[in-house]
Amino acid sequence: MSELVGNLLVGQSGGPTAVINSSLAGAVNEALNHSCIEEIYGALNGVLGILQEDFIDLAAESQQQIRGLRHTPGAALGTCRYKLKKQQDFDRVIEVFKAHNIRYFLYAGGNDSQDTADKISKLAQQLGWEMRVIGIPKTIDNDLAHTDHCPGYGSVIKHVASTVRQLACDNEGMGQHDLVSILEVMGRSAGWIAAGAALAKRRDHPHDPPHIICLPEVAFDSAKFVEDVQRVLKRETYCLVVVGEGLVDKDGNYVSVSSKTDAFGHGQLGGAGDYLAGLVEAGIPGVKARTAKLGIVQRAAALEASKTDSDEAYMAGAAAVQAAVNGTTDKCVILLRGDADQYSCETALVDLSEIANGVKKLPREWVNEDGISMNFQFHRYALPLIQGEVAVPFENGLPSFAKLSKAPVDKLLPAYEV
Amino acid sequence: MSELVGNLLVGQSGGPTAVINSSLAGAVNEALNHSCIEEIYGALNGVLGILQEDFIDLAAESQQQIRGLRHTPGAALGTCRYKLKKQQDFDRVIEVFKAHNIRYFLYAGGNDSQDTADKISKLAQQLGWEMRVIGIPKTIDNDLAHTDHCPGYGSVIKHVASTVRQLACDNEGMGQHDLVSILEVMGRSAGWIAAGAALAKRRDHPHDPPHIICLPEVAFDSAKFVEDVQRVLKRETYCLVVVGEGLVDKDGNYVSVSSKTDAFGHGQLGGAGDYLAGLVEAGIPGVKARTAKLGIVQRAAALEASKTDSDEAYMAGAAAVQAAVNGTTDKCVILLRGDADQYSCETALVDLSEIANGVKKLPREWVNEDGISMNFQFHRYALPLIQGEVAVPFENGLPSFAKLSKAPVDKLLPAYEV
Repeated sequence: MSELVGNLLVGQSGGPTAVINSSLAGAVNEALNHSCIEEIYGALNGVLGILQEDFIDLAAESQQQIRGLRHTPGAALGTCRYKLKKQQDFDRVIEVFKAHNIRYFLYAGGNDSQDTADKISKLAQQLGWEMRVIGIPKTIDNDLAHTDHCPGYGSVIKHVASTVRQLACDNEGMGQHDLVSILEVMGRSAGWIAAGAALAKRRDHPHDPPHIICLPEVAFDSAKFVEDVQRVLKRETYCLVVVGEGLVDKDGNYVSVSSKTDAFGHGQLGGAGDYLAGLVEAGIPGVKARTAKLGIVQRAAALEASKTDSDEAYMAGAAAVQAAVNGTTDKCVILLRGDADQYSCETALVDLSEIANGVKKLPREWVNEDGISMNFQFHRYALPLIQGEVAVPFENGLPSFAKLSKAPVDKLLPAYEV
Repeated sequence: MSELVGNLLVGQSGGPTAVINSSLAGAVNEALNHSCIEEIYGALNGVLGILQEDFIDLAAESQQQIRGLRHTPGAALGTCRYKLKKQQDFDRVIEVFKAHNIRYFLYAGGNDSQDTADKISKLAQQLGWEMRVIGIPKTIDNDLAHTDHCPGYGSVIKHVASTVRQLACDNEGMGQHDLVSILEVMGRSAGWIAAGAALAKRRDHPHDPPHIICLPEVAFDSAKFVEDVQRVLKRETYCLVVVGEGLVDKDGNYVSVSSKTDAFGHGQLGGAGDYLAGLVEAGIPGVKARTAKLGIVQRAAALEASKTDSDEAYMAGAAAVQAAVNGTTDKCVILLRGDADQYSCETALVDLSEIANGVKKLPREWVNEDGISMNFQFHRYALPLIQGEVAVPFENGLPSFAKLSKAPVDKLLPAYEV
């Protein structure tokens, strides 16, 4: 294999996670090891930054800031939900890559983003521009196919389960068999995040909170829900419910959905918690329902990030560079779990197109027959992913996060209108 | 002064905080130092536990669990919002105190709870039952009069400001001058908690998030709000808003209020964040608003508790015991700040009735003229309160909290119907 010499470009796409910057740190640090990589650029705001040549010089960042990325939530390069649609957009991407001699392109994102990376890769091949395109998996939703789990997931469920543990301490002291506490979490099409709340239960304590988990995988039945709550309130002084935003009824319709859609045409969800609170207060006289909605907080919760997750995200970023330098292209890094009893994890590669078009549902057989709790198979799967804590430095009482200085790379082409 | 020999009873009331158990630990540990205190009881669920003789033996708890209270959120004894109303209730309290030889009663709570303690104390005097009643201040709302600040407040604002710092990392990478992120926090009648979000701004960085703080102290003007958001979105890629649930319009009406009321007749608030999101999306085309509502999570956020706050809560619990043993009664512990540049804090005592009937508003002169940000006086006041982090032990990836074994004390009286 002949060595491909040129510049590396890394971009971030879609909704941020607590550890997407850890992947960025892994990619930058690994890239520095390879002399075939001349410059290390970051694309600001994903494909938008590529179209507009908004690149920064990542090699110019201080080591302190790059190290700080390992505990900094959000997408330090910026992301976008802009979807390349027109052929003109794709042509522009290749034109920009040629102008900046981009021979290595790494894109961290979910399936929509890996679909974009795949199309870019195929167009480059078609146009004879030799380059390597590697995807880095990223989503709190854990719904990427092929990978055992996805960087970002371990941290969000560690935060959600920690939150349940803390909420439970409060609710237990407050309830007199009359308090329903509802925590709404993200998860548009799969209940992976809501399911993760189950980790808050201690081993062999099935009655520990969360008492009820409402998953998109289980058709919601409001009468059964109210009965489930009543049963819990007979046994416990309070009932702690975790609900995924994507809850659907037996006809597959969201129980609560706003009329808005995002750039990819997905309906914007929210309000499932308030919906359940309304059911409780209407259905059970004298019982009060309190809601909390973690919203974006859950995917930015670096203070409760999983060290396992952060380390694996870093490893995925580094693995993407290694694969590209080794001549691989049009692949996405995935995580494989070892077979041994002791948890282990290594990276592998699959075709971008395979990632782009798959969705991994929460296995129905991991949900107990009651439809509102998870069985040992889920715990065995998820518990290793939340192990270890990330040390975040505090300054003057508050967490201190990295902030890139973002030295701009000169633009070489005429401006492009998006 | 003759030594008063007998038993000590401690109770917790109202909404829990991240550090109310630290006060309990302080009281228990200090009580063990005094031979005039024979037994150390805890009343389960505040006055409800007193009426029903639901006492536990706190001296029988392991040292490990009492130490663990210092990082455990919620009210380990349970609280209630039951208000003693009938004379019969008050008479029962004294009857129970006599039966169990309760000579020391400590009650941790806000102003409603200290009002209850005051009434109990006065009735005991009237009935000739010699005892000492001391209040321990507790509220995340920081609206207790006379005390410089209130145990519970430092931790909730440390959590809120940390959350803003984390949210900002996420929002900054997501926004294209089109994202408004709204964080709803508690605060029924005062904006102390929302104001605390201002600590997320770095010194001399007035444009740091939160960009807009909506306080109950400043009459809400929806047109001005939309203008403020638009101004921020011109300058920044996103606009981060923190809103207190008790936001009111110029006529003093809550901008959002449900029809429910709690046991004390206070309206239950919520939805201020969703209300602002609606204004943004209706008023600024193309801009999307995302909401998060911390709900009960904010007062249970032990993982982001302030060590200063936790230590002061512990000190307040211990000071209550010391005051009672020294012959003081019908007083509430307060916190006084030292005059020196270097922050220091000590306890003092004021009449329970003074605490019961006062409310401390956020000084209007600490709010900047723009009505949406805090000036240096607030920062000088609040920044010392969030210093230091509480070490919470993790087990198997999740925080581990104390759980009292709650050995019951024998009941000595006929049952009482509440």
